[in-house]
Amino acid sequence: MGQKAFQDYYPDHFSHCYGCGRLNEHGLHLKSYWDGADSICTFSPSPFHTAIPGYVYGGLIASAIDCHCTGTAAAATYRAEGRAMDTEPRLRFVTASLHVDYLRPTPLGIPLEIRGQVKEVGKRKVVVAALVSARGQVCARGEVVAVLVPEHLLPDGASKDPIGVKERES
Amino acid sequence: MGQKAFQDYYPDHFSHCYGCGRLNEHGLHLKSYWDGADSICTFSPSPFHTAIPGYVYGGLIASAIDCHCTGTAAAATYRAEGRAMDTEPRLRFVTASLHVDYLRPTPLGIPLEIRGQVKEVGKRKVVVAALVSARGQVCARGEVVAVLVPEHLLPDGASKDPIGVKERES
Repeated sequence: MGQKAFQDYYPDHFSHCYGCGRLNEHGLHLKSYWDGADSICTFSPSPFHTAIPGYVYGGLIASAIDCHCTGTAAAATYRAEGRAMDTEPRLRFVTASLHVDYLRPTPLGIPLEIRGQVKEVGKRKVVVAALVSARGQVCARGEVVAVLVPEHLLPDGASKDPIGVKERES
Repeated sequence: MGQKAFQDYYPDHFSHCYGCGRLNEHGLHLKSYWDGADSICTFSPSPFHTAIPGYVYGGLIASAIDCHCTGTAAAATYRAEGRAMDTEPRLRFVTASLHVDYLRPTPLGIPLEIRGQVKEVGKRKVVVAALVSARGQVCARGEVVAVLVPEHLLPDGASKDPIGVKERES
């Protein structure tokens, strides 16, 4: 798509996620982008990401919804604050709750589209709904309640406030 | 634990699941057992299954809940029918919906315990709640609505009824 993905703006410390971290060499490297008011992620499961043969593993679908929605939560907050994703403080959301309804078996072997819709943007909490489609047919829908990374998860480094939590609270 | 896991009773065709299939060489090989009225699964995430460094990836927690609860759904149905898991028809449940509340960050590097509690056993639908703990502290709780594998997912082979769906409906 040319532009940087939401996840590519995460500070290094927050870029080791198995689902979407650019620094996790074993990970899925999910990437999310804006598509108008919605967010979008295209992802091709591997042949071994199977549930029943021919269909995608449900835990992988949950993972894709999870990372796409937390990335969307960050992007939506930057957007609500009227600033670019490369400005400080950097934002990283984690998942408070995840819900997935598996509507039909998701075929394996074709790219999946995960489309996010921002439902609510609070100060530290964002709600994002998601639809997972294969060849235009919705196979699963989900919802994530995402919260800004709490302070006790910040790295013990020179900077105690790499994502600006203290700055935001002051 | 000595005894066979719930998932080891799945017919071969249904044993390719990335989360719990014994025939998926790339998979997680989650294994579930009875522990009295509850079911239990112990699982050690890999070092790369990280969310934020030091903590377990939420999508992996969702995956563990998913496979443990669908396995428990099958085991609970055999138990409700008063028969052993090696008797016909064999049962395989899939996930209709999955919900996870992440209560606190789950530490990486120690075994996790997923404890399932059967909430409801219907003819084709079973509801299982789960608690995910690390060192005795509950880090996440989940609930899965599991349904018996629908007929259109059965393999096209000599046997059109390897898990006894038709037999059960007749």
